[in-house]
Amino acid sequence: MSNQADLPVLGQDEACCAPMVREPLGEVDAVALSRMFKALSDPIRLRLLSLIASHEGGEACVCDLIGPFDVSQPTISHHLKVLREAGLVGSERRGTWVYYWVLPEALTRLSALLEAPAAPVEASA
Amino acid sequence: MSNQADLPVLGQDEACCAPMVREPLGEVDAVALSRMFKALSDPIRLRLLSLIASHEGGEACVCDLIGPFDVSQPTISHHLKVLREAGLVGSERRGTWVYYWVLPEALTRLSALLEAPAAPVEASA
Repeated sequence: MSNQADLPVLGQDEACCAPMVREPLGEVDAVALSRMFKALSDPIRLRLLSLIASHEGGEACVCDLIGPFDVSQPTISHHLKVLREAGLVGSERRGTWVYYWVLPEALTRLSALLEAPAAPVEASA
Repeated sequence: MSNQADLPVLGQDEACCAPMVREPLGEVDAVALSRMFKALSDPIRLRLLSLIASHEGGEACVCDLIGPFDVSQPTISHHLKVLREAGLVGSERRGTWVYYWVLPEALTRLSALLEAPAAPVEASA
């Protein structure tokens, strides 16, 4: 029943974007979300995602993403593949180059999940 | 110069909470943030963090955190240590038990970082 087909499409049900402070995270969601966080657990991947997200027009050619790093193009391509497989970026080949853009629903889901408590809880004690 | 002393205290400078879509993430920030995301890259740790965050009163005794999992207490303690060392939770021993609470600044920093672009970029093409 629970194959990997539900991984790429996130943020579609109501439960998707509840902050984790509101209710305990279920096992299935935790597995899916941990994969996305794993993709963010590398400094180069975080910077790649940020470069893509902040790039003019909201997308970046892989040719724009190699210069800022002291690693080889295959290494960058590997990291981009990890981001793509985690559902954080989309990509498309156009001619010589592959272009990448962030998938806003994925960022929104993670951002909402990590929303902090609205106020200190001490007052209710 | 750059020892680990700057890790636990996050979210104090203005640059701390800029969404990554606004400007490319710097190397130093990327390293610190990737460690926090690494702590979130495990389903048990994600569920633990959520259990703590959503617990009545905003904190949970380790005795409340073992029941929901099919793993041993030492394993849970290890995961809690990872969350603590990543600056995501605080803890304190009171008598027999250790109590945990989330550090809201850390969640806020990550949540803000992952804010998605405000609107689709297609209109500007």
